Amino acid sequence: MALTLDQLNAATPADAARMLDGLYEHSPWIAEAAIAQRPFRSLAHLKHTMVQVLDQAGREAQLALIRAHPELAGKAMVSNTLTAESTHEQSKAGLTQCTPAEFAQIQQLNADYNAKFGFPFILAVRGPRGTGLNKREIIDTFERRLHHHPDYELRECLRNIHRIVEIRLNDKFGAEPALGNLVWDLHERLAEFSDPGFAEKGQLTVTYLTDAHRAAAQRIAQDMREAGFDEVAIDAVGNVVGRYHASQPGARTLLTGSHYDTVRNGGKYDGRLGIFTPLACVRELARQGRRLPFHFEVVGFAEEEGQRYKATFLGSGALMNDFHPEWLEQKDADGITMREAMQHAGLPATLEAIGALRRDPGAYLGFVEVHIEQGPVLNGLDLPLGIVTSINGGVRYLCEVIGMASHAGTTPMNQRRDAATAVAELALYLEQRAARDGDSVGTIGILQVPGGSTNVVPGRCQFTLDLRAPTDAQRDAMVADVLAELAIICERRGVRHTVEETMRAAAAPSAPAWQQRWEHAVDALGVPLYRMPSGAGHDAMKLHEVMPQAMLFVRGQNAGISHNPLESTTSDDMQLAVEAFQRLLNQLASDTP
Amino acid sequence: MALTLDQLNAATPADAARMLDGLYEHSPWIAEAAIAQRPFRSLAHLKHTMVQVLDQAGREAQLALIRAHPELAGKAMVSNTLTAESTHEQSKAGLTQCTPAEFAQIQQLNADYNAKFGFPFILAVRGPRGTGLNKREIIDTFERRLHHHPDYELRECLRNIHRIVEIRLNDKFGAEPALGNLVWDLHERLAEFSDPGFAEKGQLTVTYLTDAHRAAAQRIAQDMREAGFDEVAIDAVGNVVGRYHASQPGARTLLTGSHYDTVRNGGKYDGRLGIFTPLACVRELARQGRRLPFHFEVVGFAEEEGQRYKATFLGSGALMNDFHPEWLEQKDADGITMREAMQHAGLPATLEAIGALRRDPGAYLGFVEVHIEQGPVLNGLDLPLGIVTSINGGVRYLCEVIGMASHAGTTPMNQRRDAATAVAELALYLEQRAARDGDSVGTIGILQVPGGSTNVVPGRCQFTLDLRAPTDAQRDAMVADVLAELAIICERRGVRHTVEETMRAAAAPSAPAWQQRWEHAVDALGVPLYRMPSGAGHDAMKLHEVMPQAMLFVRGQNAGISHNPLESTTSDDMQLAVEAFQRLLNQLASDTP
Repeated sequence: MALTLDQLNAATPADAARMLDGLYEHSPWIAEAAIAQRPFRSLAHLKHTMVQVLDQAGREAQLALIRAHPELAGKAMVSNTLTAESTHEQSKAGLTQCTPAEFAQIQQLNADYNAKFGFPFILAVRGPRGTGLNKREIIDTFERRLHHHPDYELRECLRNIHRIVEIRLNDKFGAEPALGNLVWDLHERLAEFSDPGFAEKGQLTVTYLTDAHRAAAQRIAQDMREAGFDEVAIDAVGNVVGRYHASQPGARTLLTGSHYDTVRNGGKYDGRLGIFTPLACVRELARQGRRLPFHFEVVGFAEEEGQRYKATFLGSGALMNDFHPEWLEQKDADGITMREAMQHAGLPATLEAIGALRRDPGAYLGFVEVHIEQGPVLNGLDLPLGIVTSINGGVRYLCEVIGMASHAGTTPMNQRRDAATAVAELALYLEQRAARDGDSVGTIGILQVPGGSTNVVPGRCQFTLDLRAPTDAQRDAMVADVLAELAIICERRGVRHTVEETMRAAAAPSAPAWQQRWEHAVDALGVPLYRMPSGAGHDAMKLHEVMPQAMLFVRGQNAGISHNPLESTTSDDMQLAVEAFQRLLNQLASDTP
Repeated sequence: MALTLDQLNAATPADAARMLDGLYEHSPWIAEAAIAQRPFRSLAHLKHTMVQVLDQAGREAQLALIRAHPELAGKAMVSNTLTAESTHEQSKAGLTQCTPAEFAQIQQLNADYNAKFGFPFILAVRGPRGTGLNKREIIDTFERRLHHHPDYELRECLRNIHRIVEIRLNDKFGAEPALGNLVWDLHERLAEFSDPGFAEKGQLTVTYLTDAHRAAAQRIAQDMREAGFDEVAIDAVGNVVGRYHASQPGARTLLTGSHYDTVRNGGKYDGRLGIFTPLACVRELARQGRRLPFHFEVVGFAEEEGQRYKATFLGSGALMNDFHPEWLEQKDADGITMREAMQHAGLPATLEAIGALRRDPGAYLGFVEVHIEQGPVLNGLDLPLGIVTSINGGVRYLCEVIGMASHAGTTPMNQRRDAATAVAELALYLEQRAARDGDSVGTIGILQVPGGSTNVVPGRCQFTLDLRAPTDAQRDAMVADVLAELAIICERRGVRHTVEETMRAAAAPSAPAWQQRWEHAVDALGVPLYRMPSGAGHDAMKLHEVMPQAMLFVRGQNAGISHNPLESTTSDDMQLAVEAFQRLLNQLASDTP
C-alpha cells in the first residue's frame, strides 16, 4: 500500500522518518531535516526541500553522502552488502550479470575515478521512464565523466543522488508520472525518424521537408488525432495544426506549440516538448469529455532551426505572413529549391496558399510555449521548471584584428603587434562585462589565427562576438562597451580591427499577465518559482510580434546540454510540465467569461 | 669635387653647416646640432649622430620634419617648387612621367594617407644599390602602408627620411659603397634561381638539391673562383666550400659561412649574406695579393631550413659528423628519398662520403657568421649592425584546453567552462612574463577553437607555446612559470589541459673572445655597439657544439621582416658588414703569431 502525502504531513517526526527511510543512502538525516519543514504541498516540494537541506549542509556533508554510496558493480555488490534499494537498481541495470571483461573494466573505471576525485562514481542507473541505462551506456557515461573537473563531478554526483531519491520516492508513494511517461513515449516514437546518414548511434537530424521530416509530421498528426483533437491538418508550409474546440462557438483561441524540426545531430526534446506537452493536456480533456471556454490550437511548427534552408522560424513566421518569397528559390546543399521540396511533399508551394496561413491576432488570446531549457541553470539549481521573463535580444559580429606577423624568436615583446593577444584581452573584458549585468551573456565562439605557425607572432586573429541580454537597452549598452574596449585595446596595441554585424534580434519580453499565469501554475504544483531569461531564440519570439506570449522552461539533464544527442529530461519533469499547463488552462478557463 | 670627412671635421660650424646643406628637407637644424658633436669617425658615425638628434628632438619636431616633405608626385612637383634633391629623386623614380591614371591614383593615396595620419607619406624612392623603386613598387608600398598604425607609420617615415639622407650624404661625400654594391649584386644574381611554382613575382624558394638549388651552388662556386679562392668544391652534402690559403702552411683555419637554401617564398638575404660578405673580403685580399696568417674557409651550407626534408642544419651538421643515417631514406612530398635526390645531384650518397666531411676542431680557430637580423630591433634603433651575445635556447609545446561546449545564449557567465577564455588569460600572462625578463620572448602562434561556432561557448581551444631566452636557465624559469600559471588558470576555471613538448634546443652563448672581436671591429667603424641575443636559430648554433663561435647581425628593412620576399637590406649596411669582417680578419691576423 503506497504512502500518501497527507499521511506524511500528519505523522509524528519519528513515523515520518520511518516513512522516508532508505531514500538517501545511509543518510537518514537529510529526510529528517526536511520533515522539520512540513507540510509539503507536493512530492516536488518534498524533493526540493531535501535538495536544499543537502545544499546547505556544506561540502563535507555532501562528500560524506557521496562516499556512503557503493561503487557501481563494486565490492559491496560482490559481497552482497548493498542496501536493498541499491541491489534492486544495480540488478535492473544488468550490473549483477557482467561478463568478466565488463567487470574488470568497471573495476578499473572505479579505481581511476576514485583516484582522481576522491569519491565514488554515482549514476542514476534507473533512467527516465523507468527504462534505465544498459551496461554499455553506463560504461560510456563513466568514461566521459572521468574527464570532468572535480567541482563539476561533485555536483553531478549530487544531482544523480537526487535523481535516485526521486525514483525511490516515486516508488514509495506509488507516484507513477503517467502523463510524463506518455510524453516520454511520444518523443521516443517520434525520434525513430531521422534523415539518412544521421540515424546511427541515436543521432537525430530532421530538417525541413525531408522524408524523415514528412514522416514525423504524419506521426504528430496521428498522435493528435488519437489524443482527441477535433481538427488535425498539415498546412501549406508543413506545420501540423491541431484544434480542440471550445465549449461554445465564437470563442477566441489560445495558441501554443513549438517546432518539430531539429538541428543536425540534435536532441529529441528541443521543440517537440512544446507540442507533446499540450497534446497530453488535450488527451486528458478529451478523455474526460471536457471542453474549455476557448479554442485550443496546438501547432507543430515545421521549421525553426534554419538547417536545410536559411529560413529560420519559417513555421511560426508563416502564421503572421512573414514568409519571404525569395525563399522558394533558395537551394539546399543538393541543389533542390524549397519550391521543389514543397511540391515533392505535396504542398501547394504558392505564395497564395502560404499567405492564407496568416492568423488574425484579434481571434487569439495569446501564445504560450513549453520548451526544454537548453541550458544548465535549472539543472544546476535542481529545479524542474523555470518561468521565462524575456527572450533575450541578441547581436552578432564577425571581427578581425590585424597586427603584424613577425618572427616569434626575433621580435622583442615590446615591439610586437600581436593580433591574438589583443583579442585575448577583449575576451577577458567581455567575460567580465557580461557577468556584471548578471543576466547578460557574451561569447567569442569562433577564434582563430588564420595560417598561424608556432614560430610566428600572429598578424591576424579572426573571431565572433555573440552578445545577448533580456532587453534591447541592456544589450546595446553592453555592445557599446565591448566595441569601445576593442577600439581602446587596438589603439593601445597599435593594431587595427574590423567589425561586421551579422545578426540583430530584438528582445521579446514576456507579456506580464501570461508570465503570471505560468507563475501561478508552477507555484500551485509546490515547485519553487524561478524566473529566468531565455538565451536562445524560440518560436514565441516570432509570435511576440503580433500577440502576447510567455514561455515555460523544463530542466535539461547533463548540464542542460542541447543541440546534441545527449539532450535529455525526465518523465518526472515532463509530468510537472503537463500539470503546469493543465493548471494554466484551468485558470484561463475560470478567468474567461 | 666630393667632400671628405676630414674637411667636415675641420671646418667652422657655419662652413660645416653649408657642407651638409640640403640633407634633411627644409630642416638644417638637424645637421647643425650634429655638427656640434664633431669629430666624426666615419660617415656611419655622422649618420647615427643625426638620427639621435632627431630622436631626442621629440614628437612635435619629428612631425614638423615629416610635414616639411613634399607629397609624392604632389602639388609641389607639379608647380616645380620641390627642392633640387627631391626633384632629382622623384624624377629618377619615374614619378615625373606618370600617366593621368597613375597620377590620379597617387593623389588619392596622398589624400587618404594624410587624412588618416596627419602627415605626408615618405618613401625613400631611390632604393638600395641606387636602382630605386619603380612606379608600381612605389604604389604597392603606398597602399600597404596605409593600413599601418599611426605610431608605426610615424617611425617608418622617419626611417625613410634617414635613408634619403644617407643617400644624399653618400652623394655629397662621393662615398659609393662599392663592396656593399658587390654583395648586393651577388644576391640579386643568386636570386635568379628558384624552385618552379614560386618563381613569379620575385618569390624565392630554393630547397635542398632541387634544380634551382644545384644551380645556386654552381653559381656560388663560380663566384668564389672569380673572387680568388684557392680551392672551391661542392662537398658530399652539397655545401659549397671555398678556401683562401694562409701565408704559411700548417696554419689553422678560420671558418665562416651560412646557408644558401631558403624557406618557401622567402627572402634573398637570409643565410646568403653570410656567404657573400666574407666572399667580398677574400676578393679584396686576392685583389691586393694579400695573405692572412691563417686559412680562411667560407662555406655555403646546402641545408639549414628543413623545408624539403625534416633535416634542419644538415649542411653545418655534416661538418661535425651530425648526419642521421635515416635521413637518406626520408621522402619529400613527391616521394623522392634524400638518397635519390643526392644521386640525381651527382653526390656519392654514402654515409662514408658524408662522414668524411667531419672537420677536426683542433685545426680550427673558431666560427663566425654574418646574418641578416630577421627581426625589427636594429631597424627600430636605426643601427646598421648588432653584436650577437647568444643564440637563444628555445622550447615549443603543443597544448589544448578542454572545457565544456555549451549554448552561448543559455549558459550564464558564471556557469561556463570556456576553453578559449582560459587560453586568453594565459596569453596575457605569457606576454607579461616574457617581457619581465627583457630579452626573453614567448609566443602563442597557433590559436584556434576547433569547429567553433558563433553561438557555442568554446569547449576546446588548441594553441602552441614558443618560449626562448638567451640562457637555458632563464628559459626554463620562464617555462616553469608559464606552465604553472596554465595549471592555476585551468584549476580556477574548472577546465583541464594537455601539454606536449615538440622541440627543445639549448642556448648557444657567443664565445667571449670572438664576440669581443666583432665588437672591436664594429666600434672601429664608428658605428655604435649594440649587443643582442639571436631569437632565431643559425648554423653557428650547430658549430657551437665543437668550436667557439660568434655572430654579427645586419639590419633588415621593413621592420626586419623575414621569411618573406619583402626581406631586404641596403648596400650601405652590407658595406659596413664587409668592413667589419675585414677589420675582424685584420685584428685576428695581428693577434696570430
